[in-house]
Amino acid sequence: MNKLNIAIIGLGNIGSYLFKYLNDNKKILTEKNNCLPVVKYVSAKNKKKKRNVKIANKQWLKHYLDSTKKKDVDIIIELIGGAEGPAKKLVFNALKNKKHVVTANKALIAKYGDQLARIAEKNKVNLEFEAAVCGGVPIIRSLKEGLIANKISKIYGIFNGTSNYILSSMEKYNKSFDEVLSDAQKLGYAESNPSADLNGDDVSSKLKILSSLCFNSFLNNKIYVEGIRSIDKTDIDNANKLGYKIKLLGFAELLNNKIYQRVHPTLIKKDSYVASIDGVLNAVIIDGKPVGQSTIQGEGAGAAATTSALISDISSILRGNIKFPFSLSNKERKKLKFENIDLRVFSAYLRLEVDDKPGILSNITNIFSRNKVSIKRLVQNPHKNKKSSSIIIITHKSKDKFLKRTLKEVDRKNYIKRKSKLIRIDEY
Amino acid sequence: MNKLNIAIIGLGNIGSYLFKYLNDNKKILTEKNNCLPVVKYVSAKNKKKKRNVKIANKQWLKHYLDSTKKKDVDIIIELIGGAEGPAKKLVFNALKNKKHVVTANKALIAKYGDQLARIAEKNKVNLEFEAAVCGGVPIIRSLKEGLIANKISKIYGIFNGTSNYILSSMEKYNKSFDEVLSDAQKLGYAESNPSADLNGDDVSSKLKILSSLCFNSFLNNKIYVEGIRSIDKTDIDNANKLGYKIKLLGFAELLNNKIYQRVHPTLIKKDSYVASIDGVLNAVIIDGKPVGQSTIQGEGAGAAATTSALISDISSILRGNIKFPFSLSNKERKKLKFENIDLRVFSAYLRLEVDDKPGILSNITNIFSRNKVSIKRLVQNPHKNKKSSSIIIITHKSKDKFLKRTLKEVDRKNYIKRKSKLIRIDEY
Repeated sequence: MNKLNIAIIGLGNIGSYLFKYLNDNKKILTEKNNCLPVVKYVSAKNKKKKRNVKIANKQWLKHYLDSTKKKDVDIIIELIGGAEGPAKKLVFNALKNKKHVVTANKALIAKYGDQLARIAEKNKVNLEFEAAVCGGVPIIRSLKEGLIANKISKIYGIFNGTSNYILSSMEKYNKSFDEVLSDAQKLGYAESNPSADLNGDDVSSKLKILSSLCFNSFLNNKIYVEGIRSIDKTDIDNANKLGYKIKLLGFAELLNNKIYQRVHPTLIKKDSYVASIDGVLNAVIIDGKPVGQSTIQGEGAGAAATTSALISDISSILRGNIKFPFSLSNKERKKLKFENIDLRVFSAYLRLEVDDKPGILSNITNIFSRNKVSIKRLVQNPHKNKKSSSIIIITHKSKDKFLKRTLKEVDRKNYIKRKSKLIRIDEY
Repeated sequence: MNKLNIAIIGLGNIGSYLFKYLNDNKKILTEKNNCLPVVKYVSAKNKKKKRNVKIANKQWLKHYLDSTKKKDVDIIIELIGGAEGPAKKLVFNALKNKKHVVTANKALIAKYGDQLARIAEKNKVNLEFEAAVCGGVPIIRSLKEGLIANKISKIYGIFNGTSNYILSSMEKYNKSFDEVLSDAQKLGYAESNPSADLNGDDVSSKLKILSSLCFNSFLNNKIYVEGIRSIDKTDIDNANKLGYKIKLLGFAELLNNKIYQRVHPTLIKKDSYVASIDGVLNAVIIDGKPVGQSTIQGEGAGAAATTSALISDISSILRGNIKFPFSLSNKERKKLKFENIDLRVFSAYLRLEVDDKPGILSNITNIFSRNKVSIKRLVQNPHKNKKSSSIIIITHKSKDKFLKRTLKEVDRKNYIKRKSKLIRIDEY
């Protein structure tokens, strides 16, 4: 019987769960992959921390980088996290020393994936990162194997459970952003420092990896990123009245041989599929030829779902299924043209908070028409104090740069009480 | 560069589409799999039929079984169909002669899959059948690879596009079963002989294959199967008023170490995920540990979606990713206990068409209570002629055999005008 030795580096929630899973399921994994996985070594920043797993003394490495040098290590599981520092050092050294690497680190892959893939390819080892994108949703393997036949024109969806939980709870429980965030932290759905989840960075890393796989291109940093921090309950209510929900979506689209990557809150029709995905779930939608539209949905985070993804990567290596990390050899990956979204056209929802003085509405509509943004719908809601009001505008489709320019000009006026809102509308 | 020679046997819509796809996408498939796929031979019942593909004379086999004997054939794609006859002969001979087999034939795999898998394993060749289950939805590969870590307790969903199209169109366009069926045939969504789609056999084959993969067991014929032929527009309307939709679902569930397989129309809450899947789409939902609930959705049929599945199987072989056809070696597959659904408990929707005479209601409720089926809700709708009426009953949860027995007894009464309806309710 073949066997492969594994070193798990990083023993937080996920690492501990994985350690236990590998011990408890040795038999079935061996049967399914014709190869025995052995957890030979582990390493963690704090060796003495209380963990729910039984680790033998000889399993502890003196130094985490020893895993990259030891002859009796075949697969290194990197669960440290972060694009720089120890995680980066570990993965680069591991691949250089011809160890297979499995990682859940989206920031590292989004930043150094191309360089790492080059080393993996040269040394004929696997670099697998199913767990880096949408946890238990087997999207990477589906793109590289199940949907391998397809020319993909678009991939989009809900890639961050924390922000999706916050937006859907604001609506469901009629609470403010801050209230819901604090609930989410208590429930373990948001980290104590949730900034990467809320400012769009987490989705941005995942989207870069996905779009590179979908379009056979190198990773590209041209991406528009906007988080959910500025979404108010008011915006959710207004969207609701207009027949929409607000979701934080990521999109990578191929249009006229150019790729557009964007992450931002967007208004989508209430009865659309994506609108129905609430709470911490993730959902990925792919438009491809010949398959048509394909959708995968599931738990996007947590130790259990992430372990499901890690095991699928480990199993692939146990079976000797050597593949290029990004589906194609580096020699064949393309340098496609990535565009920023300035020239894309969108309808948009705008909210302006203004003083209630005569002539303001005509001044505003004037600015819009001068900037080539035409208004489809306008509602003015006076506030209770009668001295100010909200103006809600739905625009016709306009170039993104015109929308932004219009708002910038409006926001310079002294009748504007605070920064105006712009939320794009995506129709499906 | 490695290369593998392919023979395509069967050149209907799917075979022709695949032939063209393989010719047009040789380069990218070679790059992704490090191996060149060559369509060496083809065979079809009617050589002279007009096809939209260019086939050289030397590519035509004299006899379809020659593909199993020729040394320059590595992979045989079986697209003949049917569990017996030429398809069966071809696949058995191919595996015996150490050829890899890719097939879209669910009936064959559901019936002879265990025997075929044994030969494939012995001869170390692949037997791949992604295209046999839910077309473009990469469910087989997801179960065998992406979700390999999971202990699955339940798989269910919409596995037949034709019947789903019919049920959702009856509701949407307010039409009868026969009207919608005839529309579906004109649109190409139903075959001229749609019986396997409508009587549940198609779903039954797919479900047997899926449950075998999910539970690591041999294929098992203990399965309850009921089609959609007897669903009336009236039932759809009644369901709607009660907050439900009617869908033809397949279920395989592990309960107390017993597996229950069932295919039947079922009432599900309108706001559930499965209820939202309309038209020809397929959707598969899996409950597993550690992943939680995972869902895959996409086009279930058609030449394009099926080709996506076939290419994923072919690519797996090109990459040399040899796997057991049912995920585990035959030696490790289990003989699990399969139970029929008599002892499962369900709430049910019943519709009784009765003469309007005094005493009938008390007679009916009497029969129910004698058979241990308790009634949760009862509505009597007199028909316009006033001489007869519909009685709609929603039961509390009862053993399936009690439900069936009750209806059998009721149906013997002479005040019953035609066979009563029983549609189970599944709550999610």
